[in-house]
Amino acid sequence: MSSKLNFQQMNLRLLEYWQAQGCLIWQPYNVQVGAGTMNPATILRVLGPEPWNVVYIEPSIRPDDGRFGDNPNRMQQHYQLQVILKPDPGNPIELYLRSLEAIGIDRREHDIRFVEDNWQSPALGAWGLGWEVWLDGQEITQYTYFQQAGGVDLSPVSVEITYGLDRIALALQGKNSVWEMDYGAGVKYGDALLQAEIEHCQYYFNVADVDALKMIYDTYEREALHCIEAGLVAPAHDYNLKCSQLFNVLDTRGAVGVTERAHYFGRMRRVAHKISLAYIEQRQRLEYPLADNPLWAHPEATAGKVPSELVTRNSTLITPEDGDPFVLEIGSEELPHGDLDSALEQLRAAVPAMLDAARLNYERVEVEGTPRRLAVMVQGLAARQSDLESVVKGPPADRAFGQDGKPTPAAVGFAKSRGLSVEDLSVVEEGGKRYVSAVVREAGRPSVEALAERLPDLIAGLKFEKSMRWNETNVSYSRPLRWLLALHGPAVIPFRYAGLESGYVTYGLRPYGSPAIVVRHAADYHAALENATIVLSHNARRKAIAAGVAELARSVHGVVPDDPDLLDEVTNLVERPTPLLGSFEERFLALPPMVLVAVMRKHQRYFPVYQGERLLPYFIAVRNGDEEHLDIVRGGNEQVIRARFADAAFFYDKDIKRRLEEFIPRLSALTFQTQLGSMLDKTRRLEKLTPVVAQMLELTGGEQATAERAASLAKADLATSMVVEMTSLQGKMGGHYASRSGEPDDVAAAIAEQYNGVSRTRPGMAVAIADRLDSLAGLFAAGLGPKGSNDPFALRRAALHLIENLTANRRHFDLQAGLDAAGALLPVEWSDGARADVLAFIGGRLEVVLREAGHSASVVRAVLAEQTRDPYAASLAAAALAEATQAADWESLLDAYARCVRITRPLAETYALRRDDLRLPEERDVLAGLIEAEAAKDGSVATFIASLRGLEPGITRLFDAVLIMDDDPAVRENRLALLQRVAGLARGVADLSAMEGF
Amino acid sequence: MSSKLNFQQMNLRLLEYWQAQGCLIWQPYNVQVGAGTMNPATILRVLGPEPWNVVYIEPSIRPDDGRFGDNPNRMQQHYQLQVILKPDPGNPIELYLRSLEAIGIDRREHDIRFVEDNWQSPALGAWGLGWEVWLDGQEITQYTYFQQAGGVDLSPVSVEITYGLDRIALALQGKNSVWEMDYGAGVKYGDALLQAEIEHCQYYFNVADVDALKMIYDTYEREALHCIEAGLVAPAHDYNLKCSQLFNVLDTRGAVGVTERAHYFGRMRRVAHKISLAYIEQRQRLEYPLADNPLWAHPEATAGKVPSELVTRNSTLITPEDGDPFVLEIGSEELPHGDLDSALEQLRAAVPAMLDAARLNYERVEVEGTPRRLAVMVQGLAARQSDLESVVKGPPADRAFGQDGKPTPAAVGFAKSRGLSVEDLSVVEEGGKRYVSAVVREAGRPSVEALAERLPDLIAGLKFEKSMRWNETNVSYSRPLRWLLALHGPAVIPFRYAGLESGYVTYGLRPYGSPAIVVRHAADYHAALENATIVLSHNARRKAIAAGVAELARSVHGVVPDDPDLLDEVTNLVERPTPLLGSFEERFLALPPMVLVAVMRKHQRYFPVYQGERLLPYFIAVRNGDEEHLDIVRGGNEQVIRARFADAAFFYDKDIKRRLEEFIPRLSALTFQTQLGSMLDKTRRLEKLTPVVAQMLELTGGEQATAERAASLAKADLATSMVVEMTSLQGKMGGHYASRSGEPDDVAAAIAEQYNGVSRTRPGMAVAIADRLDSLAGLFAAGLGPKGSNDPFALRRAALHLIENLTANRRHFDLQAGLDAAGALLPVEWSDGARADVLAFIGGRLEVVLREAGHSASVVRAVLAEQTRDPYAASLAAAALAEATQAADWESLLDAYARCVRITRPLAETYALRRDDLRLPEERDVLAGLIEAEAAKDGSVATFIASLRGLEPGITRLFDAVLIMDDDPAVRENRLALLQRVAGLARGVADLSAMEGF
Repeated sequence: MSSKLNFQQMNLRLLEYWQAQGCLIWQPYNVQVGAGTMNPATILRVLGPEPWNVVYIEPSIRPDDGRFGDNPNRMQQHYQLQVILKPDPGNPIELYLRSLEAIGIDRREHDIRFVEDNWQSPALGAWGLGWEVWLDGQEITQYTYFQQAGGVDLSPVSVEITYGLDRIALALQGKNSVWEMDYGAGVKYGDALLQAEIEHCQYYFNVADVDALKMIYDTYEREALHCIEAGLVAPAHDYNLKCSQLFNVLDTRGAVGVTERAHYFGRMRRVAHKISLAYIEQRQRLEYPLADNPLWAHPEATAGKVPSELVTRNSTLITPEDGDPFVLEIGSEELPHGDLDSALEQLRAAVPAMLDAARLNYERVEVEGTPRRLAVMVQGLAARQSDLESVVKGPPADRAFGQDGKPTPAAVGFAKSRGLSVEDLSVVEEGGKRYVSAVVREAGRPSVEALAERLPDLIAGLKFEKSMRWNETNVSYSRPLRWLLALHGPAVIPFRYAGLESGYVTYGLRPYGSPAIVVRHAADYHAALENATIVLSHNARRKAIAAGVAELARSVHGVVPDDPDLLDEVTNLVERPTPLLGSFEERFLALPPMVLVAVMRKHQRYFPVYQGERLLPYFIAVRNGDEEHLDIVRGGNEQVIRARFADAAFFYDKDIKRRLEEFIPRLSALTFQTQLGSMLDKTRRLEKLTPVVAQMLELTGGEQATAERAASLAKADLATSMVVEMTSLQGKMGGHYASRSGEPDDVAAAIAEQYNGVSRTRPGMAVAIADRLDSLAGLFAAGLGPKGSNDPFALRRAALHLIENLTANRRHFDLQAGLDAAGALLPVEWSDGARADVLAFIGGRLEVVLREAGHSASVVRAVLAEQTRDPYAASLAAAALAEATQAADWESLLDAYARCVRITRPLAETYALRRDDLRLPEERDVLAGLIEAEAAKDGSVATFIASLRGLEPGITRLFDAVLIMDDDPAVRENRLALLQRVAGLARGVADLSAMEGF
Repeated sequence: MSSKLNFQQMNLRLLEYWQAQGCLIWQPYNVQVGAGTMNPATILRVLGPEPWNVVYIEPSIRPDDGRFGDNPNRMQQHYQLQVILKPDPGNPIELYLRSLEAIGIDRREHDIRFVEDNWQSPALGAWGLGWEVWLDGQEITQYTYFQQAGGVDLSPVSVEITYGLDRIALALQGKNSVWEMDYGAGVKYGDALLQAEIEHCQYYFNVADVDALKMIYDTYEREALHCIEAGLVAPAHDYNLKCSQLFNVLDTRGAVGVTERAHYFGRMRRVAHKISLAYIEQRQRLEYPLADNPLWAHPEATAGKVPSELVTRNSTLITPEDGDPFVLEIGSEELPHGDLDSALEQLRAAVPAMLDAARLNYERVEVEGTPRRLAVMVQGLAARQSDLESVVKGPPADRAFGQDGKPTPAAVGFAKSRGLSVEDLSVVEEGGKRYVSAVVREAGRPSVEALAERLPDLIAGLKFEKSMRWNETNVSYSRPLRWLLALHGPAVIPFRYAGLESGYVTYGLRPYGSPAIVVRHAADYHAALENATIVLSHNARRKAIAAGVAELARSVHGVVPDDPDLLDEVTNLVERPTPLLGSFEERFLALPPMVLVAVMRKHQRYFPVYQGERLLPYFIAVRNGDEEHLDIVRGGNEQVIRARFADAAFFYDKDIKRRLEEFIPRLSALTFQTQLGSMLDKTRRLEKLTPVVAQMLELTGGEQATAERAASLAKADLATSMVVEMTSLQGKMGGHYASRSGEPDDVAAAIAEQYNGVSRTRPGMAVAIADRLDSLAGLFAAGLGPKGSNDPFALRRAALHLIENLTANRRHFDLQAGLDAAGALLPVEWSDGARADVLAFIGGRLEVVLREAGHSASVVRAVLAEQTRDPYAASLAAAALAEATQAADWESLLDAYARCVRITRPLAETYALRRDDLRLPEERDVLAGLIEAEAAKDGSVATFIASLRGLEPGITRLFDAVLIMDDDPAVRENRLALLQRVAGLARGVADLSAMEGF
């Protein structure tokens, strides 16, 4: 098969390939869509129970991917090939890999990887789990098991395979840019498409009439709703798609703010939901015309195309020896990095527990895994369960035996029911009564039986942060399970799970075509995997990668800094790691290193290579597979990074044409929140609020000026292309652009760190706190405080940042005053209610923070009852109170104070203290201590405790020696007044009544 | 090759076939389009000089073709396969026929016909000439040579081939309905598409929000114009397409009136024009990137794939014998019916003229032809031109010969210059002067040379109503020329025309693959064609068809009424006619016969079969080809007529659910003209105007009531589906529906005949005249009278109808009063200017009518100078005047009258006649005649002439005997007064001063 197919030939081959797999060939949709998913042939057909298998090309329009034709593989229009397999045929990844072979991509010659990707479309109310498929580092396909569409759970689940045709052709043709590719008929891709590409970009970025398109959006939405009312699914869907495209244009034009975006998504999603329900209802009414297509009938999910002679039921002739090893391999499609870690951890706990519960003795449990397999290996496993002996209580002894000592029918019956004779019974005494009892022995069953019962639950017990369904069993797992190997010694543990039958077959590496490997004895398992060159152990892979990476770095006189997170992730992406060194053009080093590093680490999972502080023009990737054809893989990866960097350079060059402050006016087009105005409005508020906050934080004049300037510029980078594209760089890019624009270093630093939880600089802290205060005050005032677990504006994090920043920087700060200052600047009313709500909300966060700092619930309660307005003070108070509770005298101190509180608490009135009327020495003693304590009072727990410590003996004496509740009201009330004053010492400090023992 | 390809397999085959011909495979467009033509891959790429060869599928959306899924092959969405070949490769029809073979359609087994179709898109500003391709009566392809797009002439011309994939698949799969077809993957076409089809219809016909969509149209149009201003071709085009789709929806929703439609088209066309100009400019700026594709380089247009050894230059060895026959065959792609007739007629005149001019003697010229060839056959053609003898005048004799009679050097020089000796000169006398002269003889050249010079001009001289260009020579013809056979005896007449080289090859029937046929001698030509079973003679084909049709009709005991127009047309559609009888379901006979007949005759060119007055469920079609596989052809045709009738039944059944008057309210959605309101407004006016007109026409009370009711209902059928679909049935359907709705017969009759030029009933006449008056008054008042040859509202015809109707029905009618009555009802101002304009306009038509009736210009002038307000009167006047001019006394009558006029014309004053002062017998005589004449005067010419005849002797005597201009002013003025009164007799009758001899 030629590897030089032109674009159209390649496309035809793919259509033909999938046609041969029983797919209907559909057409691209006649409404502009962002992806083939939105074609009704996907987004509607995946709903409901009918099977559906389809393939089609979809020229997909994503306005904000437009690069005016300057990027080698990123365009506002790219061609997708969309495949839907419904239901899952059992071997979809294999079918997919064969489709690549049909166009000349041999999996042995490339690095084809399945990289976790949790796809969701907020506009379609759809999500699914799956992967990006990488070809030599390039994402060429989006592969998803569709879980929900239009807000409706899907059953059956559909497999969605979305090829990026342009990128695949690029790789096939070995060109540097899509524009250079051979489209077909002697025409270059660029000659066919470039001019329109440039024009569409121009339109989307610079020409589209924002107001007009918004109005049309509203109109089309209404029309969609009319259609739904009239029961018209397809026309309603068309209008929703048109809305989606209009939204994309508006967004690219920079006319949609963060909160407005969420609002638009919500609108589209609501319409999509109605459409989906209407479609489902309609298909039911039509009695599922597609239900009975014999071409599409999958008999049942099968174990990943195991040759049938290898799928064996357990033979009674084959049994394990006692002490034979046991192996369970749970084979699946590629697990996400985090799920693999989590599953191994869960199994390490669950397997011993399971064996213990099963009364199966064993020597050692090992759990290891790769992205495609979790392996449980048990050494020295007993062939049978231990026997179980238990005492069973029968009837009362006096009923069981006659006065003659002979067994009654009750005793006989009881013995018989337990399979014993009367002679085996004995008598036990319990609670002063005597009963007949029997000792029952349950003989252990063979390990094979015991495990066969429990292994399904073991697997079912594995929980993942996100799990998915894929076949008619509706079992959930991280990714589809494809085989189960379960052997004790030579014996298969026979069980079914998720439509799979356990057996003695495992599968080799994807690059080798995942060949079936027969394991006839559990003891052979390790060797079988080694033979297949699969490195089962995480640590072994990790070490090999680390060593290989270091060596490759050395080869160019560089080093790779420790990066355990990335190393762990990469380790979990491969079954057989082979690191490789790639290079990129030096010119890209002109970009800010943070950009390059973000692209390499975050987007590509490459290790960046340094020489000292300096980046080198190299990267290290890790292939899943061996050394063969490594040059092809390297070449592919280099092409990818070139395109990625070119993209970053496109943004960067565009941004640095302007000074940072020139972006400020554009913030007017970014809505912060409808009621609270644009990001420019927010900026204007921050400019006013930051100096106030700075003063409250006691910054110097110079620091205040710095903070004020930083506040002006803080949000400007949100309008830069780089941040629009790589949101994770917000703030940091702002700092960089500020420096480039000639701003002072401390201004740049304050901008750069504004999103951090804890500020490093004082001007930075002022900006960060002002920012959080504005968000909290504003969004609560607008009635948009978090509800339940729904926190769309991340206000929990904002509150946490306030607390952590002030606490870590040991700064007292009156939140109420700060919020009032923020509230006064808002375009909406700042009410007492809103203030109380925000403070309560921050108090809730503060409680969590203090509890997480290790303080007891009572300490936290006691402190927060009296102080939430100053988080740093509260943290000091909690510490001091906690310390006090550890002191030897705590109980007496608390008791003394509690007596004062308890006796005065019922009083409706606060009595005036007439000092001179206190004549008893016990009274005078307490009065003297009180006067001292009131003078010392500074709001801190430490001072309060010290005062209390001074007062305690007097108080104790007073209560012991003097009747407080004297008959003479004057005397009584004066004594109570004294105690009220003592009780009041804790006001604003802590509410000790919350303490245990109060 | 299997004939059971499913839909998607068939589509893939076609894509692959055209890919193999060097076409780029494009994708359907992501904007809803009515046809693949609108995809920029056609409508933009056909502009400018670059080559472009492309194929793609286009799901095309035509809302008003929606039938809610009830029709077997008519849907709002159908799939097109679009092919563009630019430039014309020279054999595009052959390439097309082979593509059909690639999907299993053997041209031997079917009747594949090329039926004239002049495609135009008013919205795109595009037009072209070509054909509908019929497969067994079914239109399966639109084949067009694109002449203009976006209002720009195209060079080169593109070949556009638009396949109707659904219909082709229907034929291939032999199903009764598209919904039953196999789409692929085991799925029925209907299961994949029917539900959405129904829903879209529902939306387009019943749900779409008219006001909202109109607003969006306006907005999108503005956005398109913004894009054009910004130089963005592709986005501008997208918006224009969106406008087009919105228009189609509005139209289907019934929200666009006739004039509003023209307005929308104009708007779209203007945008399309701007886009085209911008695109052309852009391609030039880009320096035509597609210009140099070697795959697309056609060396030059060739003569329809003539094997090269057969293309011969004339050999000097082969020469005709004197008297050998001559044959010229002009081979082309299929000529339209009318063009074929016209070309034959032109050749019958032009060939003898050419031969005479060429001084080639001949015995007989025959001209015959078929759709693919025009044949000129000359019997007994001379092998050489006749010699030419001419007398050339030289110098004056006295300068040529000396006094000695000897020739001077002048004579010698003259003789030498003519190749003669002095002895050959003679002397001639001219105008009294003598000159030397020479008789020059030009020897005739060989016929081959003489014809080679003239044949190109002969072909170039053929003119067609519409002609087209197709290749780089930019020659115009009815359809592309593909070969030229030109033989005199055995000798080829060598010439080039339209990129073709003449030769001795002709081509056989399309069903046989158009095999090349060598004709070695002109005398063999007839036999060669006969051998190829081509019937060259129109009459022979016509007779054969007539006989065959009659015989087939007899076979079912039916007859086919004489239908010479249809017979002529069918004769011109085939080269070898084979009539065949098909049948349709009896149930369709429930439809009104006019509908069935219109479908059969107009749409299908079938002969309907009658038994007496009654239609039989049969039709007769005429195949181009032989009897082989006639069953397949019959079956196809039967399927077509079934779908057509089903379509008609769909409309009819829909219409008759309501009484005719229930359609009246819907007329409010049909705009008559923006300023003049809807068709409902027009109806309301007609209801008022018709009674007025009826009174003016002196209808009885009963007739008036009938007319009034008919006026109310007259336009209602415009809102019926049947008339929306088949406009030609307007009025007639209204009459039918009126009868069905229980209206009286005379009301129905008046409705039915409202569009006729001449009314048969008197109420019908009242309605028709009121209708025309309203249109004329209204549109002139709105400033929309015809300008130049531009008459978008067909007002010329309206005026003509007024004239013909009144004249034919011999009704006097005061147009001015009628127009004033109409004008008073208009929603716009009815001014004196408008009235004058309309009357002048009608006068102009009347002049034409009278002239065409054979009256001399002077008669017409004379009559119309005095009467235009009453066309019947004017026609009578013209007749009478014409008759008078033929009488023996005309000259004396005219003279007498002229004398009266001439002597009084200079007078500024009209004198009072004092009868008693006229005492002379001559005076009294004339006075007596005058009194009599004035009493008789009735405005008619006849009366006037009679009076004049009585007066003439008196007048003559008066002038002869009496000096009118007496010196006595009183006498003089009284005599002049008398003559003024005589001259005045013609006032309002005719202006005889316009007559010759006046």
